[in-house]
Amino acid sequence: QSNVTVYGIVDANYTYNSGGDRHFAGVDSGGISGSRLGFRGSEELGNGLKAIFTLEYGLKVDTNTGVASARQQFVGLQSNRWGTVMAGYVYSPADDFNSDYDGLSNSGLLSARSNMLNDGGFSTKTDDTFQNAVGYISPEFGGVTLRAVVGKGEQTVSPRETKLALGAEYKAGPFKAAILHHDVDNIGGTLPKRDLSETVLGAAYDFKVAMLMATYASKKLTDRDRDNTWSVGARVPVGNGSVRLSYAKLDMSADNGNKDASGWTVAYFHDLSKRTTLYTGYHALNNASLANYDHEQVKGLTAGDNARLFTVGMRHRF
Amino acid sequence: QSNVTVYGIVDANYTYNSGGDRHFAGVDSGGISGSRLGFRGSEELGNGLKAIFTLEYGLKVDTNTGVASARQQFVGLQSNRWGTVMAGYVYSPADDFNSDYDGLSNSGLLSARSNMLNDGGFSTKTDDTFQNAVGYISPEFGGVTLRAVVGKGEQTVSPRETKLALGAEYKAGPFKAAILHHDVDNIGGTLPKRDLSETVLGAAYDFKVAMLMATYASKKLTDRDRDNTWSVGARVPVGNGSVRLSYAKLDMSADNGNKDASGWTVAYFHDLSKRTTLYTGYHALNNASLANYDHEQVKGLTAGDNARLFTVGMRHRF
Amino acid sequence: QSNVTVYGIVDANYTYNSGGDRHFAGVDSGGISGSRLGFRGSEELGNGLKAIFTLEYGLKVDTNTGVASARQQFVGLQSNRWGTVMAGYVYSPADDFNSDYDGLSNSGLLSARSNMLNDGGFSTKTDDTFQNAVGYISPEFGGVTLRAVVGKGEQTVSPRETKLALGAEYKAGPFKAAILHHDVDNIGGTLPKRDLSETVLGAAYDFKVAMLMATYASKKLTDRDRDNTWSVGARVPVGNGSVRLSYAKLDMSADNGNKDASGWTVAYFHDLSKRTTLYTGYHALNNASLANYDHEQVKGLTAGDNARLFTVGMRHRF
Repeated sequence: QSNVTVYGIVDANYTYNSGGDRHFAGVDSGGISGSRLGFRGSEELGNGLKAIFTLEYGLKVDTNTGVASARQQFVGLQSNRWGTVMAGYVYSPADDFNSDYDGLSNSGLLSARSNMLNDGGFSTKTDDTFQNAVGYISPEFGGVTLRAVVGKGEQTVSPRETKLALGAEYKAGPFKAAILHHDVDNIGGTLPKRDLSETVLGAAYDFKVAMLMATYASKKLTDRDRDNTWSVGARVPVGNGSVRLSYAKLDMSADNGNKDASGWTVAYFHDLSKRTTLYTGYHALNNASLANYDHEQVKGLTAGDNARLFTVGMRHRF
Repeated sequence: QSNVTVYGIVDANYTYNSGGDRHFAGVDSGGISGSRLGFRGSEELGNGLKAIFTLEYGLKVDTNTGVASARQQFVGLQSNRWGTVMAGYVYSPADDFNSDYDGLSNSGLLSARSNMLNDGGFSTKTDDTFQNAVGYISPEFGGVTLRAVVGKGEQTVSPRETKLALGAEYKAGPFKAAILHHDVDNIGGTLPKRDLSETVLGAAYDFKVAMLMATYASKKLTDRDRDNTWSVGARVPVGNGSVRLSYAKLDMSADNGNKDASGWTVAYFHDLSKRTTLYTGYHALNNASLANYDHEQVKGLTAGDNARLFTVGMRHRF
Repeated sequence: QSNVTVYGIVDANYTYNSGGDRHFAGVDSGGISGSRLGFRGSEELGNGLKAIFTLEYGLKVDTNTGVASARQQFVGLQSNRWGTVMAGYVYSPADDFNSDYDGLSNSGLLSARSNMLNDGGFSTKTDDTFQNAVGYISPEFGGVTLRAVVGKGEQTVSPRETKLALGAEYKAGPFKAAILHHDVDNIGGTLPKRDLSETVLGAAYDFKVAMLMATYASKKLTDRDRDNTWSVGARVPVGNGSVRLSYAKLDMSADNGNKDASGWTVAYFHDLSKRTTLYTGYHALNNASLANYDHEQVKGLTAGDNARLFTVGMRHRF
């Protein structure tokens, strides 16, 4: 048993969700963190070298769905001196970026930033784990950590999809900043060939009374104009918890900006312990005149309709 | 590792099963308990409050099926004083009721009661876990425990299915009794609107030389007459095990009672240890003239045909 | 937690694979061992008797696939005196045979023997775990161990598929030899009735400077002539690892031997520890004039085309 740690998160909430004249209320899985079950371990190999592995699966705890879908699966080697290399189904550096530079820590339910990136089809949100992948994380030197992941599509004939993610992060005391790039060649392995290039920037400063953060994301597809998203966020410690704020704006080039949207969130996370958090939050999504982005369970909005969401929930880590 | 307990049941049997002129013999999963793999834990939060979680998956150990289907998944808070509240994919109180007031402990393979409820489509048997659910279990006061679960269908437009389960149990020394109610509004979320109302009663008395139990279930669908099931059961300690008896009768209103059926079971559970049990049993299912309920692997019976089943098996808990 | 051991293997590799004018390069799961996650335990019942269980699932760690497919699932009793009996989804003795008498230990990626058996449709390779099965493993007496597994198809009407596997192994110091037989009645439960009879022989001798092994497999289907496969293999300890060699020949009766094929492999396994191995290998598959067996990701070869494969990877056991 000493070779493996069983860990996970069970997060469930009760959410009221409206959009246009539709609404939905019910229990959902994964409010501030995706519910998951994982198995991980490491083995000392000597000379500062370790073998490591992670097998982590996503759960929908409000349903009868089993352990059917992986979040990440890899085996690798970790060296104090040379960094970490891993192979399998590997997180792009976007996954950590999305959590660390977001006032709502990448909550799919509540984060305005997460929802704007999702609505705009930004791969750093929608495709933050690569199949058939090799990843590398450098040691920290002078506050800088570098990361790279290369993944391949499942196609066995040309054109074959190739994905590259590169990330760099700098930390100095209360300040941190990161840059992240996704490059997808031959999206989906289909013809005509389409490529994607996406760059994300983030910065955060911990003023102790509040941690403030801002991000900018810019995406270019071969046959489309450039789309952008920017966001600001804050985490304000209050008692045994924190107030969480997020604002994000999606600037779509299509239809003269009439497919733009914006969102904002205010939430409170109350920590019953280091492992257990109660949370509540309100999220507003505002669509431009030709946009009908929806959110969570309410689908099929009329263009220009807005969506609102209120949630209370509990997250337990084990 | 201290945060999570891995537990489960592996139950497999060899069963001979006949119906009309058909028969089947082979290995099956889950004779007296469903095979399962689970992960659970609790965290002390102080003041008599705990965070709790359970992630439990059903297994078919005679096949190559993986951990694909959940039995229950929830996160919750448990207070000595206020009881337990949980959210996720939550057992109706019917699940415990079915085990505790049945001579065969809700064995899908052997229990006459379980089979009659299943054949009659009683939701307290066929739908004893609710999706999108919130559940509550009261503390015991004066021998009484109350339970409630509310679940919602996955429909995002009206009419949306809503399920309510309410249960009360009273225990006093060797005696216990329980009442349970299921109320389903807008079954399946389809039109025309159909509702279900179902009530179950049970009582048991432990005479030491034998525990005797009886149950009654009554179900009313909007567009059908009332159907009823009743059962009696016994558990008789013998050596390192127990003789298990079950008789149940299904009274269907349809076709002037010619879709009725009854069943009886005699079985012996032999405990090799607290965790490991060998079992054998015989179950008979008798169909009325227009009924063709089948059981286990033998399907497609002619109306009025009877079914028989003999099994030997092993259950191991871990 | 003392009742269950969580164990597994995470094996991932980077493989370059060509066939005819096609090629493929990428990360794959399970180079020298199939990636897996398992749960097993045993309970002492006294008098040399144990209850045992194994729940083991196959993983594709380069994808987002979850714990969806079982490798083996069983519960059983193990007696020092009488042997082991188990029921569930049970390995034929072929599974151990394939590992123990193969220079590449049954690696689906690298073993020439494994690939020839697979290409020729030998059930001892392609169907080495039986559903609805009961298995028996004798104690060792005079160096001899006997095994038997009987499994059934899922058909509920005649003709129903029945599978029987019988195996015997003899060990004496550095020498071991085994014989294995598969007998399938009513393949797939379809008409016209087809049966399969397959026998495999293997022998190995550990000369310390090298372990050498050889196998022979012979298969007869009702409506086909007899097909054969033979193989030789070697494991040569070198430093903290071993050189692994495998050659195999498939003799198909169809088309006057023009559907034959052969393969050879040279590989090196380097053990970073008892649990962690780096490996690299080269495998060549040569098709006869009318044969187009493919291997791994490169599909759709022209008859007579050959396939090649080069891999580097890592296996970690936990």
